[in-house]
Amino acid sequence: MPTVAMVEYEQATPEVRAIYDEIMALKGIDFVPNFWKTLASHPPLLEEVWKGLARAMAPGRLDALTKEMIALAVSATNACEYCIRSHTAAARKLGMDDQMLGELMAVVGTFNRTNKLADGYQVTVDEQLLRPGAASAPLARASRRRQDRALERKAQRSAKAATRSPRRRS
Amino acid sequence: MPTVAMVEYEQATPEVRAIYDEIMALKGIDFVPNFWKTLASHPPLLEEVWKGLARAMAPGRLDALTKEMIALAVSATNACEYCIRSHTAAARKLGMDDQMLGELMAVVGTFNRTNKLADGYQVTVDEQLLRPGAASAPLARASRRRQDRALERKAQRSAKAATRSPRRRS
Amino acid sequence: MPTVAMVEYEQATPEVRAIYDEIMALKGIDFVPNFWKTLASHPPLLEEVWKGLARAMAPGRLDALTKEMIALAVSATNACEYCIRSHTAAARKLGMDDQMLGELMAVVGTFNRTNKLADGYQVTVDEQLLRPGAASAPLARASRRRQDRALERKAQRSAKAATRSPRRRS
Amino acid sequence: MPTVAMVEYEQATPEVRAIYDEIMALKGIDFVPNFWKTLASHPPLLEEVWKGLARAMAPGRLDALTKEMIALAVSATNACEYCIRSHTAAARKLGMDDQMLGELMAVVGTFNRTNKLADGYQVTVDEQLLRPGAASAPLARASRRRQDRALERKAQRSAKAATRSPRRRS
Amino acid sequence: MPTVAMVEYEQATPEVRAIYDEIMALKGIDFVPNFWKTLASHPPLLEEVWKGLARAMAPGRLDALTKEMIALAVSATNACEYCIRSHTAAARKLGMDDQMLGELMAVVGTFNRTNKLADGYQVTVDEQLLRPGAASAPLARASRRRQDRALERKAQRSAKAATRSPRRRS
Amino acid sequence: MPTVAMVEYEQATPEVRAIYDEIMALKGIDFVPNFWKTLASHPPLLEEVWKGLARAMAPGRLDALTKEMIALAVSATNACEYCIRSHTAAARKLGMDDQMLGELMAVVGTFNRTNKLADGYQVTVDEQLLRPGAASAPLARASRRRQDRALERKAQRSAKAATRSPRRRS
Repeated sequence: MPTVAMVEYEQATPEVRAIYDEIMALKGIDFVPNFWKTLASHPPLLEEVWKGLARAMAPGRLDALTKEMIALAVSATNACEYCIRSHTAAARKLGMDDQMLGELMAVVGTFNRTNKLADGYQVTVDEQLLRPGAASAPLARASRRRQDRALERKAQRSAKAATRSPRRRS
Repeated sequence: MPTVAMVEYEQATPEVRAIYDEIMALKGIDFVPNFWKTLASHPPLLEEVWKGLARAMAPGRLDALTKEMIALAVSATNACEYCIRSHTAAARKLGMDDQMLGELMAVVGTFNRTNKLADGYQVTVDEQLLRPGAASAPLARASRRRQDRALERKAQRSAKAATRSPRRRS
Repeated sequence: MPTVAMVEYEQATPEVRAIYDEIMALKGIDFVPNFWKTLASHPPLLEEVWKGLARAMAPGRLDALTKEMIALAVSATNACEYCIRSHTAAARKLGMDDQMLGELMAVVGTFNRTNKLADGYQVTVDEQLLRPGAASAPLARASRRRQDRALERKAQRSAKAATRSPRRRS
Repeated sequence: MPTVAMVEYEQATPEVRAIYDEIMALKGIDFVPNFWKTLASHPPLLEEVWKGLARAMAPGRLDALTKEMIALAVSATNACEYCIRSHTAAARKLGMDDQMLGELMAVVGTFNRTNKLADGYQVTVDEQLLRPGAASAPLARASRRRQDRALERKAQRSAKAATRSPRRRS
Repeated sequence: MPTVAMVEYEQATPEVRAIYDEIMALKGIDFVPNFWKTLASHPPLLEEVWKGLARAMAPGRLDALTKEMIALAVSATNACEYCIRSHTAAARKLGMDDQMLGELMAVVGTFNRTNKLADGYQVTVDEQLLRPGAASAPLARASRRRQDRALERKAQRSAKAATRSPRRRS
Repeated sequence: MPTVAMVEYEQATPEVRAIYDEIMALKGIDFVPNFWKTLASHPPLLEEVWKGLARAMAPGRLDALTKEMIALAVSATNACEYCIRSHTAAARKLGMDDQMLGELMAVVGTFNRTNKLADGYQVTVDEQLLRPGAASAPLARASRRRQDRALERKAQRSAKAATRSPRRRS
């Protein structure tokens, strides 16, 4: 039960109904989610938030699914139940399956860990990350050679590990 | 300056050096970032965090750029400077330009806003989101018709708005 | 169900009862909220937290309602259900209606968005904000003129918008 | 240094300049803050965020200073340096002095503490807070009498404390 | 109900079962907690997270109870219900009683308050905390004398307070 | 530079000086940290926060070092630079070395990860964690046997792993 009375479709003013219709149409659902019925308790908030969200989620250089997965990553980091359930459902509708969700959660978990380690140890930002463009410069020859050797070594180790660890094959 | 002494490549044990090499190789950079030199103050932490990160970031159903952008969304939500700078640089290297970053930030900003509104009003999760599969069910015929009408209306409104709002063209 | 046994009024020591009485009296309620019955599982915590809260909430230069609304803004940002419900009820008792709550939530939502954008892009603090007093200096004449012109332009635009957007009148 | 190039006034398109002018006018400052010059790297984001912020901050049932103080409370809770400095400056301009800031911070500190205690002990929401209207019902006669007795006792204790605690007089 | 189907012991692959067995054995419980049955929806995540957790929680220089209490402090700060309940139960099993939990929560509450004050006022880090080793240097003679005098004064004040404050005896 | 003028020892009122003396004495340092000089801009806040902190940090069932480490875990999770540096220094003074800090950070990182996974997947709290006392019940005989077998298996695997993985010996 939210802390204000929700505005049902039947009670809504024509302006609010027009937004409700747009929400259902754009999301392809046949009910008005509680989130929007709650914001309608203060119509300017409903309008502002819905318009902003519709603009941000319109496919651009990033496609709709990528945007929903980013929305889910943010919501998981903020631990917002409503938002997690809503964006999980929306992303599934756009094609996210359990494995994709698993990979997404693996990334969310990993960086919530490293974020706290970087802050917890007060790691200094690398000069290379502050020099504009520097971090994205093409690798110097020496480092390329080192990279090649390292990748080779890693591939060899992985090959060995695969022969003795049955789960690596799954 | 971190709260522990960093372990430079030259001082490192062979085990730590092997991880440093792998980091530079996999990330395609020719320096060991401060983050890893700091974690090396406790070698089991360096190993555990690096291995976990490498596994989570390996391309799978989600590609490397999508994963970096999710990492950036998490880091922005947590306000971790080191991580924001690091993942912005990494995503740029994989092709993210200013517009893609802008779209990403628009999504991050939007859902940090809605997350707090959903929690701030204590919005109840919609029953439809809790029924397994329900939210992703194909739209019933009635709602489809409503959706079509709404999309039509919206397109008409947008067309009108475009004729009077010069910024829409940009 | 909290993770410790709550201390009911009847079981409480005289010292704890005295605090319970004070809580009910100051808040004008006729029950001891679960929060305090839970803290009473460790009486020094009950005393410390209650005394501190009573001091912080005593009207001073900020009135009681403003303080409750700030408490609600903090609780929404932290997504603390208990606190959101408790401070919404307390603020309503002091006169907050749905529109005031809507304006409060609009501010909470807006700045949770801008906070993450400022951090997400690692925006540098303006020199003007770091010079003591500078940012609050009276506007120079030139900027005043620019301000007047801009406000005028904005008012004109708003007037035009009002004539074509029916919802602006609500 | 932000992670994108800022757009200076001189380089900006007429549309972006119009927004810059509006920002300086509405805020009464004679420079474009870095925040907005950064968002201008993605013009739709600049427009969306500025319009939304201007709408949310327009005085309504809550006055401009109250809104700035709520913005500061949110920013402090999120630990956003840019935003803390910006909203502190803005609130000072509107009349907030050190004591008001002190009272605001006391409230922010208090509820960041209680938020974590309510969550940390998993305190159950009181039934009275979930019954609509119940928590704001006028106090029953019995509880009023208890309240009167408690306030009396408290006043007596305070009077005694004042005679022996010199700091209370400051 | 989690957002994915949990994997029950009976349905699990031999690899997943082996992890389930290890979890129950190491935690000394006779059921597989929902957390792990949920992660099993993406087996690499289950394995990575469980192995990492087991390594981090293995007693080292910090004992198991201290580690569980730190886990609880983190979970309370993040307001993660599942984690709070799980780590409270685990810490109780290792000997944490209500008073220890009360002291732990007092610390968690205290520093969630001071964290926000330090950030909210943008307190500058003391030079002494940045000079390596300086803050932990033995006290100079002058400061020692001041410390002795202060502690003496405090002890005298506490003694007086104890004679007039009955709650100090509880 | 904080957002208010700090109160130096020389300028302070006798009441504020008395608190400064107590801070230096109790912490065993010969300077007044900026945090307290900042809070002194609003003396009631200085007094309230210092008294509360001193009470919470007084050794009780948890010793001083454990409390400092919990304070550090909270501060790392909140990413409060001032607090991280201050509590790291304080914990080092009480004996925390790099390895203990490493173990602490490993726990902080681990549970920031699992917190977000438990929330991100919306894992349901296990019934066993909600039954009072149930989770701490002694293991039934059947589960004990399973535990024994599992621990045995694990020990065997570890033994094998140690013979082929040189880093396990370090």
